[in-house]
Amino acid sequence: MFTELIRPRFLETDALGHINNNTYGVWFESARDPIFHIFMPKVDVKKWNLVMAHSSFDFLKEVFWGKEVIVKTAISKIGNSSLELCHAVYQEGKLCTTGKCVLIHYNFETKESVHIPENIREELENHLFTLPWHGTLKELEEFVKSGKN
Amino acid sequence: MFTELIRPRFLETDALGHINNNTYGVWFESARDPIFHIFMPKVDVKKWNLVMAHSSFDFLKEVFWGKEVIVKTAISKIGNSSLELCHAVYQEGKLCTTGKCVLIHYNFETKESVHIPENIREELENHLFTLPWHGTLKELEEFVKSGKN
Amino acid sequence: MFTELIRPRFLETDALGHINNNTYGVWFESARDPIFHIFMPKVDVKKWNLVMAHSSFDFLKEVFWGKEVIVKTAISKIGNSSLELCHAVYQEGKLCTTGKCVLIHYNFETKESVHIPENIREELENHLFTLPWHGTLKELEEFVKSGKN
Amino acid sequence: MFTELIRPRFLETDALGHINNNTYGVWFESARDPIFHIFMPKVDVKKWNLVMAHSSFDFLKEVFWGKEVIVKTAISKIGNSSLELCHAVYQEGKLCTTGKCVLIHYNFETKESVHIPENIREELENHLFTLPWHGTLKELEEFVKSGKN
Repeated sequence: MFTELIRPRFLETDALGHINNNTYGVWFESARDPIFHIFMPKVDVKKWNLVMAHSSFDFLKEVFWGKEVIVKTAISKIGNSSLELCHAVYQEGKLCTTGKCVLIHYNFETKESVHIPENIREELENHLFTLPWHGTLKELEEFVKSGKN
Repeated sequence: MFTELIRPRFLETDALGHINNNTYGVWFESARDPIFHIFMPKVDVKKWNLVMAHSSFDFLKEVFWGKEVIVKTAISKIGNSSLELCHAVYQEGKLCTTGKCVLIHYNFETKESVHIPENIREELENHLFTLPWHGTLKELEEFVKSGKN
Repeated sequence: MFTELIRPRFLETDALGHINNNTYGVWFESARDPIFHIFMPKVDVKKWNLVMAHSSFDFLKEVFWGKEVIVKTAISKIGNSSLELCHAVYQEGKLCTTGKCVLIHYNFETKESVHIPENIREELENHLFTLPWHGTLKELEEFVKSGKN
Repeated sequence: MFTELIRPRFLETDALGHINNNTYGVWFESARDPIFHIFMPKVDVKKWNLVMAHSSFDFLKEVFWGKEVIVKTAISKIGNSSLELCHAVYQEGKLCTTGKCVLIHYNFETKESVHIPENIREELENHLFTLPWHGTLKELEEFVKSGKN
């Protein structure tokens, strides 16, 4: 599981006074950085090898500017050439937004999906995690401490 | 069904040379403008009465800067206080991205969902439409001409 | 002079209830599309030949969601390899924001500025215009009708 | 002087492979957070009292995804009701972008500028700094160590 601290930016709010829905995808993309680095240890945009096939979001509570946000990211499934990730946004200890996405290991030149190599698969498996998504941050932390995963 | 023409903006591309995934939610929000106006005929941000509960995206084909995009939006379900919408992005006649979202008719003061009033429901029903989402733009247009909806 | 109609997007507002300052640069980039096409008639991101050296913004009046915006763009100076543009945002007939930017005709491979070719220069000169930037939209239109430029 | 570490986000790149120009204003807004807190110790969007009158940007070097960025922010002038700030973006020790902005201490209800109170002025003066904007990060650090400010 990966943890990212984010300070909401003022332009990420909208006229309803809270963080605009379109912001969560931006934060989740940022939170996937460690995953990108597993697939591309030498950070090189020209050798990018991941493409997103699907994403979804559930908006549970409003998030506000002025207080830090925690984004937790887990790898929930590893397929032949695909990967499912889960994301959760917490503010002041409360679960506010959840998200999922499916990434495909992809060759941009041949336009084909590519089997995930064994060494990458092993590293990904170290981070495989079934997050109790609908708990509070406190429940999540207790779950993590319990070592059930 | 609602149609919106969008000229992709250069900052909506990313270093992979195509439109960044986070852009589609922005375009879909823009394409929901006519829905917002059905619920709020007097455009007044202070009386906003819709909140998003869920959204999802399927990324089928890359979209590029330099060519116009058509976003089709349909109302696919009307519940007691909720509304499901479908969106489709076409570029050069090809279906590139689909999306769904669930909006809740909501009172921001009482923090409660609100039954959709009859007059709004009737207007929404005029736009109720089951889009053949997985066809090309041409198939969609033939479907529309056929009057099956 | 170029004219672009823009419908403000909801995510372009912020918690102060108006359009966020960072939005104007985005609109101006969109309004420069015809300039990009003069320099690159075949829209090809791989052959991009313009780079921005400077930009500035003056924020005169708030802009709001729910009403269309007009962005006027003029070429104010043509140098050897550079170009100065002026932008103005109008909403409900009132001048709300002005901006300037300097673009350089540039070769991304050699990393050097490039003399603007004569055929492009001639086309640019057709659009050379000294906008009375501090007038209202009505005054601007009268100025344009007067043919003083 | 204020320092902010920023990890560029992938969507902040554009099809030219570098960070899009519109991103710097977003980073600078984020880097102004400590200034916002001096004016509004209780973070409350409803009591916001700053408005931007002017901003400008000079783009010196490209910035890329994959490497951290340092944003330095200094207060360069304090007027009766206004404030001038300078920003500088460094990546890999090189000065890449500079920016300035003018903020007005403002009452959103009366729509008037407001004299900066003495206690706020004193706190701002602690951060008054004339940055040698056109040096490298190394030169800046030597300048800071020299205690010339």
